Amino acid sequence: MIQGIYLDNSMAARPSDRAVSQMLPFLTDMWGSPSSPHLKGQELFPAITESYKAIYALLGAKESDDFILTSCGAEGINQVILSCFYNVTRISGKNQLVTSHIDEAPAIMAMGRLETMGCVCKMAEAAPSGMITAQAIADTITPRTALISLSWANALTGVINPVAEIARICKERGILFHLDATHVLGKLFFDLEEVGADYITFNGDQLHAPKGTGGLYIKAGVKCAPLILGGSEQAGYRGGSLNVPGLVALGAAAQEALESRDFVCTEIARLRDKLENGVVEAYPEASTYFQEQDRLPNCTILTFPGIANEALLYALNRKKVFASIGGGSLQQAGLILKACGINETLAQTALSFSLSRETTEEEIDNAIEIIADAAKRLSKLRISESN
Amino acid sequence: MIQGIYLDNSMAARPSDRAVSQMLPFLTDMWGSPSSPHLKGQELFPAITESYKAIYALLGAKESDDFILTSCGAEGINQVILSCFYNVTRISGKNQLVTSHIDEAPAIMAMGRLETMGCVCKMAEAAPSGMITAQAIADTITPRTALISLSWANALTGVINPVAEIARICKERGILFHLDATHVLGKLFFDLEEVGADYITFNGDQLHAPKGTGGLYIKAGVKCAPLILGGSEQAGYRGGSLNVPGLVALGAAAQEALESRDFVCTEIARLRDKLENGVVEAYPEASTYFQEQDRLPNCTILTFPGIANEALLYALNRKKVFASIGGGSLQQAGLILKACGINETLAQTALSFSLSRETTEEEIDNAIEIIADAAKRLSKLRISESN
Repeated sequence: MIQGIYLDNSMAARPSDRAVSQMLPFLTDMWGSPSSPHLKGQELFPAITESYKAIYALLGAKESDDFILTSCGAEGINQVILSCFYNVTRISGKNQLVTSHIDEAPAIMAMGRLETMGCVCKMAEAAPSGMITAQAIADTITPRTALISLSWANALTGVINPVAEIARICKERGILFHLDATHVLGKLFFDLEEVGADYITFNGDQLHAPKGTGGLYIKAGVKCAPLILGGSEQAGYRGGSLNVPGLVALGAAAQEALESRDFVCTEIARLRDKLENGVVEAYPEASTYFQEQDRLPNCTILTFPGIANEALLYALNRKKVFASIGGGSLQQAGLILKACGINETLAQTALSFSLSRETTEEEIDNAIEIIADAAKRLSKLRISESN
Repeated sequence: MIQGIYLDNSMAARPSDRAVSQMLPFLTDMWGSPSSPHLKGQELFPAITESYKAIYALLGAKESDDFILTSCGAEGINQVILSCFYNVTRISGKNQLVTSHIDEAPAIMAMGRLETMGCVCKMAEAAPSGMITAQAIADTITPRTALISLSWANALTGVINPVAEIARICKERGILFHLDATHVLGKLFFDLEEVGADYITFNGDQLHAPKGTGGLYIKAGVKCAPLILGGSEQAGYRGGSLNVPGLVALGAAAQEALESRDFVCTEIARLRDKLENGVVEAYPEASTYFQEQDRLPNCTILTFPGIANEALLYALNRKKVFASIGGGSLQQAGLILKACGINETLAQTALSFSLSRETTEEEIDNAIEIIADAAKRLSKLRISESN
């Protein structure tokens, strides 16, 4: 096992001990299928009910809302987008789908595929503030807009989008609104009623739940077609045997996320600030971004002029400081900054650091030193500013 | 935890100790994302490679074939069917999809939804032998047939379909062929080359792997569109963070399934035969089915004339013998027998029992006694034969 200073929690956070230990009995002892009408299936229901309750509590959902356990955030996003095609586009002819240039791959790719089925995908532009503003969304809307899908906050910059404002526009115009809440759950106080999204999806990985878990919230009264058909499981919203151990782990993770939210929003924000300030102090050429914005408490993006971000990422990796330039389902850090109007050469020097509730002050102190040292060494091998 | 005599392994089998113990370090220590280009992500690759190897070995797949880790069997089935729509129907106009009346819900439902998109779904009829014969398949085929999707063997009767023969027909006619191998893996010797399917899917649950795991095999040279778009994970076949703990567990389960296949095909077949013969001996009104057919070694279906199968299932449940009448993603036992030409009233008395490699002789001896006793008690409360 590799140990180090892990500052890539927007990609994956360590599954919590509680989530794993509560999951275990459902792998070893209570492993039946809840579809089975006998005791070995039925014994699962108390835990299933408790887990749903914890997830509803984290979301602030009402009992009349629906929640589907998915296998990952991407699954839920694909389900919402395909559902819109089945339930809205084919029936009403509304064929325009909106996301943003800085959104994550699942929404962009799922919408892109529907372009081959007669849909039109529009990309809202990011503002210099790092936000997708309500105005940027409004600018994309036509009478044919069926769905707007956005990340609630950007995984790499931490900038939070004005979702309530965007939801109001959607409501006025009869447009479905989907929010990817992966990066905000447990890191942001919100009132779901006020947020007003029709669908909310999230990935378990970032919530200290094990891989293979995610969720899809569907507001009461809103329709959603299944992506995976195959039986009456999950009220028909998702066929296939219910992943009970995954659900139990996600429930435990949801409960902990709620319990630690205050801590994350204060203490982890303080450590994040310390990291930003410490790096800039030790290596004054580095710049921070979006500090005045409404942003997540646990992440930050910095540029290191003249240093290719891959080179810095690699140098930090050798010192066991783990950061991110994006990738996987995430956009590239450089592309995001560029979309926010930062000079392209500078943008390509961007690294993102994301903390979790487990990050310690000692780790941050050490990280500052290691990052500044690595940047100093690499700055002697500068890429040309004009390149 | 409920303990008893568990004879519902076609629905879910106990995750093996090896699968769970090999999975655990990937929940607690090596929990990074393999998409991360740093050590915490890269440390996962040796285990990922080993797990894929074990799964390829179980399938008998070649290195040039593709394998996608899915979250369940239903996901893979939905992917194959939607992929056919995207890659074949929209391009060639071939819009006919074939499965069988006795197939499982995911294929039937996924094809059914495509009927709303201009596809035509045909259902091959089951023969009195319990098989979907090559002739029955040939009878459904037209020049517009794009895909045939079948369960390799029926989960409740155990009858194995003549898949190599059907594959030859598909090959001759340029039709894609998908097999759901959920119920045969580890229970049947086969040569994948000879089987000749384009796609093979399976659910992990029946393979003594934890819930939330499944697989999709794609023959080298065959195309497959993603169901879950969202990044470059799994060569673009499936977006979303790779479920490494699930993959490791599935790999361990695959290895064990291969190791125990001989035992299952001989010793477990003997116990299954003992169960059948024992029940019929102790309760002579019971009948067995398909004993002369090529069938799985671990399952059997019996009828108990005059006794509603739900009543018998419930009575057995009280004595902690866990059997199946179908449900979940499976068809109902009664409907399957009826489709095979059994009188409807009799068919509705059918119970299916499925053993696993963990089933013991003592359990079978006890089960025989409990089943016969319960049937004797219930036979005094007969449903009318003419009903």
